[in-house]
Amino acid sequence: MSGLLLASRTPASWAPSVAGDVGALLSDHAHCELKAAASAMTLLRRHGARAGLVARLTPLVREELDHFQRVLRELAARGEALRPDRPSPYTRGLLAAAGEPRRRADGYLGALLVAALIEMRSHERFICLLECRELSALHEFFASLAEAEERHGDVFLQLALQTAPEDLVRERFAELARAEARVLAEAPCGPRIHSGPPAG
Amino acid sequence: MSGLLLASRTPASWAPSVAGDVGALLSDHAHCELKAAASAMTLLRRHGARAGLVARLTPLVREELDHFQRVLRELAARGEALRPDRPSPYTRGLLAAAGEPRRRADGYLGALLVAALIEMRSHERFICLLECRELSALHEFFASLAEAEERHGDVFLQLALQTAPEDLVRERFAELARAEARVLAEAPCGPRIHSGPPAG
Repeated sequence: MSGLLLASRTPASWAPSVAGDVGALLSDHAHCELKAAASAMTLLRRHGARAGLVARLTPLVREELDHFQRVLRELAARGEALRPDRPSPYTRGLLAAAGEPRRRADGYLGALLVAALIEMRSHERFICLLECRELSALHEFFASLAEAEERHGDVFLQLALQTAPEDLVRERFAELARAEARVLAEAPCGPRIHSGPPAG
Repeated sequence: MSGLLLASRTPASWAPSVAGDVGALLSDHAHCELKAAASAMTLLRRHGARAGLVARLTPLVREELDHFQRVLRELAARGEALRPDRPSPYTRGLLAAAGEPRRRADGYLGALLVAALIEMRSHERFICLLECRELSALHEFFASLAEAEERHGDVFLQLALQTAPEDLVRERFAELARAEARVLAEAPCGPRIHSGPPAG
């Protein structure tokens, strides 16, 4: 979406630093897909009567489920199982920065923009991963996930632009994008899609 | 599943008492479908490494989403939109009776049996609705939902029997089925799938 960009770029050192534990990285992403599906379903439950929301979000939820299964198949092909989910300081920090949506008059807009930012960051991270030589066996897989994350980010931005004037969307997006970059920079390092910069 | 039955029957007066507000009934059920999908996804996140769980539950989640969309189409055909969700004393009471799954050693079994009981009760309620003369226009729709709810109940019971000895499953099921019947009997009346007995 023109001009609506992440407020930071992942350093080149990130992808090689997480490439050593592909099982952890894929497990983390499998959970991310389910969490994205659950968040979209929460939006459907709270705002399902809004024009266009069901038509836009139900295919997205289905695609997140498809990806969850694909990530599990990739794990199985490596002889690995899904590892337990761990709390995500990134998601928690971003939601805290956005404020509890139910308590804000513009909670729907905030929820859409948080979802957009998470998808956009996932897209950016998969681009880093697919350019990483150590992960070349997963190049096509990561490329298709990157494409989907970018498309999903656009869905949420388009929904945001349908719900509020463009100036307001841009202002709130810029504020949340800054928060997202700050939360990501402060997140612990390690083999997760939304981990912080590598130590050292 | 042989011998694993609900501990109460819905009185014949229930269906006619909720038939007067089909919009509310369908809206409530649309939310039930999304909540069932969300619960299944929570099981996937917590226990996704267990054999067979992903293969059994991802098609179920997709089917819940299909039904959510079908219920919305049915609402739209009646010129109605999805109404906001309301807290469900039934689900809340049943979960309270089962104990917080994470805190119990047999939390996975409890979660499966609670899910089974909700599907079984939904099945029983749709059978009541499809036999209700006032709702004859929705007969086929309710029949197909009833079939799916019954099948989903069986999925959860089969998963339960894969995870624990049959004696233990039967004992815990009986205990939770009694709780389910009690919670349902105490739930407020009104046009919801899991409402209590009609007043008077």
